[in-house]
Amino acid sequence: MEYRIGMIGCGTVGQGLLEILHKKSATLRDAYGFEPRIVAITDKIKGTLLAPEGADLPKLLQVLAQGKNLGAYRPGEPAASEALDPLDMIERTDADIIAELTYTDIKTAEPATSYIKKALRTGKHVVTSNKGPAALHYRELADLARKNGLQFRIEGTVMSGTPVFSLFEAGLAGNDVREVKGILNGTTNFILSKMEMEGMDYPEALKLAQQLGYAEADPTADVDGFDALAKVVILTNVLMKGELQLADVKRKGISSISLEAVRGAKKEGQRFKLIAQARRKGDRIEASVGPQKLPLTDPLAGVMGAHNALTLDTDLMGKVTIQGAGAGRIETGFSILSDMLVIHRCTPKKS
Amino acid sequence: MEYRIGMIGCGTVGQGLLEILHKKSATLRDAYGFEPRIVAITDKIKGTLLAPEGADLPKLLQVLAQGKNLGAYRPGEPAASEALDPLDMIERTDADIIAELTYTDIKTAEPATSYIKKALRTGKHVVTSNKGPAALHYRELADLARKNGLQFRIEGTVMSGTPVFSLFEAGLAGNDVREVKGILNGTTNFILSKMEMEGMDYPEALKLAQQLGYAEADPTADVDGFDALAKVVILTNVLMKGELQLADVKRKGISSISLEAVRGAKKEGQRFKLIAQARRKGDRIEASVGPQKLPLTDPLAGVMGAHNALTLDTDLMGKVTIQGAGAGRIETGFSILSDMLVIHRCTPKKS
Repeated sequence: MEYRIGMIGCGTVGQGLLEILHKKSATLRDAYGFEPRIVAITDKIKGTLLAPEGADLPKLLQVLAQGKNLGAYRPGEPAASEALDPLDMIERTDADIIAELTYTDIKTAEPATSYIKKALRTGKHVVTSNKGPAALHYRELADLARKNGLQFRIEGTVMSGTPVFSLFEAGLAGNDVREVKGILNGTTNFILSKMEMEGMDYPEALKLAQQLGYAEADPTADVDGFDALAKVVILTNVLMKGELQLADVKRKGISSISLEAVRGAKKEGQRFKLIAQARRKGDRIEASVGPQKLPLTDPLAGVMGAHNALTLDTDLMGKVTIQGAGAGRIETGFSILSDMLVIHRCTPKKS
Repeated sequence: MEYRIGMIGCGTVGQGLLEILHKKSATLRDAYGFEPRIVAITDKIKGTLLAPEGADLPKLLQVLAQGKNLGAYRPGEPAASEALDPLDMIERTDADIIAELTYTDIKTAEPATSYIKKALRTGKHVVTSNKGPAALHYRELADLARKNGLQFRIEGTVMSGTPVFSLFEAGLAGNDVREVKGILNGTTNFILSKMEMEGMDYPEALKLAQQLGYAEADPTADVDGFDALAKVVILTNVLMKGELQLADVKRKGISSISLEAVRGAKKEGQRFKLIAQARRKGDRIEASVGPQKLPLTDPLAGVMGAHNALTLDTDLMGKVTIQGAGAGRIETGFSILSDMLVIHRCTPKKS
């Protein structure tokens, strides 16, 4: 079955997705009956590609690998070198699915939220790895999708392509989630791991994380817990049907954790982790992000380096923990494919 | 949407399933549009219930809780106190789904395999937690199901209701699995945990496992690795498209592991686990079950007590590990519900 796909944004995640679609095209077609066609791309920096016939992936990947503007895909059409306004692109394309892959603005969730609404109102499924719309407007966007018989899917917003939402939907449906508790930020987990395992102090470990590309030049979003905070809000609102806002979550980062504290914990058979957590307390949900000392028997304690992990405490299955990559070009690109395959495979039935 | 369900076997797992269906009936109807009706049960010891109108669950659960024969559900019909041959039951019922919940016979996979074939040939989906048919005849039964436009689902055969097959199908589809590696037997993991954490020797820890109901009076299937062996064959054949037979797997149990060896490993920062493993080597798949010393940084090393865990090494997502319950009445009952919800939600599309 063919799916026409429009992409907003063609940076790291978008290019990871295109690579996977190319590399796996035979498997996707033969084993899953899934035949994606890239019919439109618009990117602020790289310009626009409109290819109603479906882009030739090797040719497109070559243009991108050479660092060229998307206009180079079809040299006769100079207009393509400018970025088409995504709202216009959504309006004009007959895509079945829009992959919204722009940057996260956690304060406004814009312009991504406008793009998503436009897509859902013009009959297109939406798949995104952008944390903004999912953290600020999940319920509204999911309702809009449902009203239009469409899906709004967000696997890549938490733990990149490691299954979290699809794990619950497909394998734990019917359970009530009493608590979510996770290591949702790879950068801080990498820093804490280096402090404990190699005796680095915090500034040294942070510097290494920056050198390796795990942390940004301004590391605030990671080390002060804002990234994990957005993710725990998303998890709570999707898996626990909460209505949390960012300001409802207590937040503390890891910058105040000293090497002495890490060593002291180790002596007690414990380990510091930046834990994002939300727990049902009567009618309320209490959520927090902050460093915790975990006993080594906690399934989250063994998660080292840039890996992420999440424990769901459920009424029927008890605690179920999933561990895997939390970031990465191919891993986040895969989250987009994974959501598209869910759209392909499953349409929720209601009698 | 209503689903008519026939149950073969009404022991621990079947009763766990019935309890969940009762407790969760409002959620299943309102949130998932899933309305199960138990229309037939046949059990060697408990007799037969034919209830084309759908059994009243509270009444049925009361009969079972009182240890009565299923004939007591409808006292006017004495014939019900004898077990109807499951083949006849399958023939006569108009169930949409057969839940095959008889005991595992790992040598012959019978009579379960005959029941499953009969069900698939008479137009019924099959859900089972029985390891026999899945370990010996997965490919044949899955093909038979597909040819008839039906599903043959086996979530409960590995790690009870902790999502393994649905995790892959829904969240990792498109990946090639290069290796499966897991702690798939809770009894042996409990014994090894007790030896390490509480300094018990092997016979003492085994005795405790028997007292707590984790191990059978004849513990061979667990401690000699036969249970884990069947599970690794199932995983290999389903997730790696292998064609392994039980005899292809090297097997060693845990009974030769001394307390001294456990202590020695601990001193080296390692931990003994009974590991079931299968890895692709060129065209072949090499599989084994046996004790391994894992470094504490291995995601499987922190899995203590009766919990199970499984790491899938994939080409796109790297290593993904899931940890959760490996057994239990409600947990295995849930695996059956979980598979029924997949049948409800997803029908594979092929263009």
